[in-house]
Amino acid sequence: MSDESLLVRDLGEHGLLEKLQRFCPQDIIGDDGAILATTPNKSLVVTTDVLVDGVHFSDRTTTAFDVGWRATAANLSDLAAMGATPLGITVGLSLPGKKLVSWVEKLYQGISACLRDYQTPLVGGDICRSAVTSIAITALGEVIPQQAIRRSQARLGDAIVITGLHGLSRGGLELLQNPGKGDNLEPVERDRMIQAHQRPKPRLDLLPYLAKISQEIAIAGMDSSDGLADAIRQICRYSGVGAVIDRGPAIFPGLIKLAGFSKAREWMLYGGEDFELVLCLPQNYALNLVRDLGGDAAIIGKITEVPEIKLVDSNKLVTELDIDREFRHF
Amino acid sequence: MSDESLLVRDLGEHGLLEKLQRFCPQDIIGDDGAILATTPNKSLVVTTDVLVDGVHFSDRTTTAFDVGWRATAANLSDLAAMGATPLGITVGLSLPGKKLVSWVEKLYQGISACLRDYQTPLVGGDICRSAVTSIAITALGEVIPQQAIRRSQARLGDAIVITGLHGLSRGGLELLQNPGKGDNLEPVERDRMIQAHQRPKPRLDLLPYLAKISQEIAIAGMDSSDGLADAIRQICRYSGVGAVIDRGPAIFPGLIKLAGFSKAREWMLYGGEDFELVLCLPQNYALNLVRDLGGDAAIIGKITEVPEIKLVDSNKLVTELDIDREFRHF
Repeated sequence: MSDESLLVRDLGEHGLLEKLQRFCPQDIIGDDGAILATTPNKSLVVTTDVLVDGVHFSDRTTTAFDVGWRATAANLSDLAAMGATPLGITVGLSLPGKKLVSWVEKLYQGISACLRDYQTPLVGGDICRSAVTSIAITALGEVIPQQAIRRSQARLGDAIVITGLHGLSRGGLELLQNPGKGDNLEPVERDRMIQAHQRPKPRLDLLPYLAKISQEIAIAGMDSSDGLADAIRQICRYSGVGAVIDRGPAIFPGLIKLAGFSKAREWMLYGGEDFELVLCLPQNYALNLVRDLGGDAAIIGKITEVPEIKLVDSNKLVTELDIDREFRHF
Repeated sequence: MSDESLLVRDLGEHGLLEKLQRFCPQDIIGDDGAILATTPNKSLVVTTDVLVDGVHFSDRTTTAFDVGWRATAANLSDLAAMGATPLGITVGLSLPGKKLVSWVEKLYQGISACLRDYQTPLVGGDICRSAVTSIAITALGEVIPQQAIRRSQARLGDAIVITGLHGLSRGGLELLQNPGKGDNLEPVERDRMIQAHQRPKPRLDLLPYLAKISQEIAIAGMDSSDGLADAIRQICRYSGVGAVIDRGPAIFPGLIKLAGFSKAREWMLYGGEDFELVLCLPQNYALNLVRDLGGDAAIIGKITEVPEIKLVDSNKLVTELDIDREFRHF
């Protein structure tokens, strides 16, 4: 570890690059680009995300390690959402000269820790000076083209399956921003929400299940990074269909204890950054998938013809999904 | 074209993304990632660059169109430097909300114009809010792995070949920053230097020649984006060799008229951003390549055993290459 007071501008671009190269496989260092082997029958999948200090992360709620982890997880989640196996990521980093070198090293440690969990290499990058810290990650993966999961493939009658629980990341953020809140939570509930916010897990563990299904039928889907409601809305929009959500998705009990039922339900639908998958597939495949995944997935509704999205509450009150609520980054 | 006064924040992230999607092939829009077909016997080549407002470009010398062109050309040049054929690029854009939408559209027009010249698609991107405009581009290409050009492959006795002319981009920058300068230049000389700065051309036109040679022997090389001297230094460093530059590379006459011989020579060696190729290959292959390229390439020296770089002037004065001169971005 470097001297804790060393600044980026003390090292310079070349010095910092040399320090960061140890996070890359040694055989790809030195050239203008990295060379990666691919699988002959697969197509390349590419996805890019930009994260900006003060917009997507802040030192107040997120350590440098966690910024790296989350940025990496978000991009690997985009690959999982397409049914693609990761090949590698690149990191383009903009930094003020007065940033601590130790911050940058911790960022890369977080990136590397997440990549290690999913056997994915860091295959390239660039660093440069800027008044604002920002991180642009491009993730590369591969998928048999006929088996790719796409938003546009939902069909009338498909069951809507969601993995995991939603709203936990938003609950974790609330706890981090307001340390006094949530006295009534069990430590395990608190930890789980904070963990969901700081160290989300891309659902690459689902790939073997999805690959098996998509040999037989097309799966529609995406991840819920911008919220569960947004994912359903995007799938319906690109597939030209509607949806009825007729079983309220399960709400994590700790979330209700933290925020009350009404707010917990709002965070569950609109909170975002849960990085779970929202999938549409024929009823029998959906039932098998949910069974195979144990308690980790649920059918929450089905695809309908009329292009509108209805939430049917347990007391049969029908409401329209509030489709104007979404992330606004400007 | 949009209303000239429309700001990014007026449109919001989704509105702006929709506007920019027309620069992408229509079949890749809508999913978390783009899907690209690859060639079975080739490996993937990946390269990333980040450009920041005020560091790599400025409204004073560069229009939005040219910022887009240059950023794209720089990344395609990295692919050319590896001997790789482009597959596509992604663009991660950070923008202040007060940026004009028309600026962003012109940026994308510049990106698209450069991509069009090299039959390369824009395959993905992200936009987000930031106090500072920055552009992170990742370029994807493919190459038969045994035929990749690498910095580490220079061998004792190799000839050093450079394409094109060096220092022109730096001369163009001088003319743009000091419109009063260069009264003694012919219009064609002035235009050529300004063009070299604003619309550099990645040397993808060399790929067929290089592919043919690299079927037989390994080529060492990189592009001269950080300067001709830097390229020679990097190749020597990664190959564990030295070099003697015994024929001064030709200097563009307009550059000498603009800045005098001494400064012109300095810009030729250290100016950077010419995006030409610096290649090391056996003498007979080098001679054939230079002949095939007509006046567009020259042998300027050879690879030596002792790990130092010597410039032998025409009057036989031997000087060491000033290896500490390099871009410092922090």
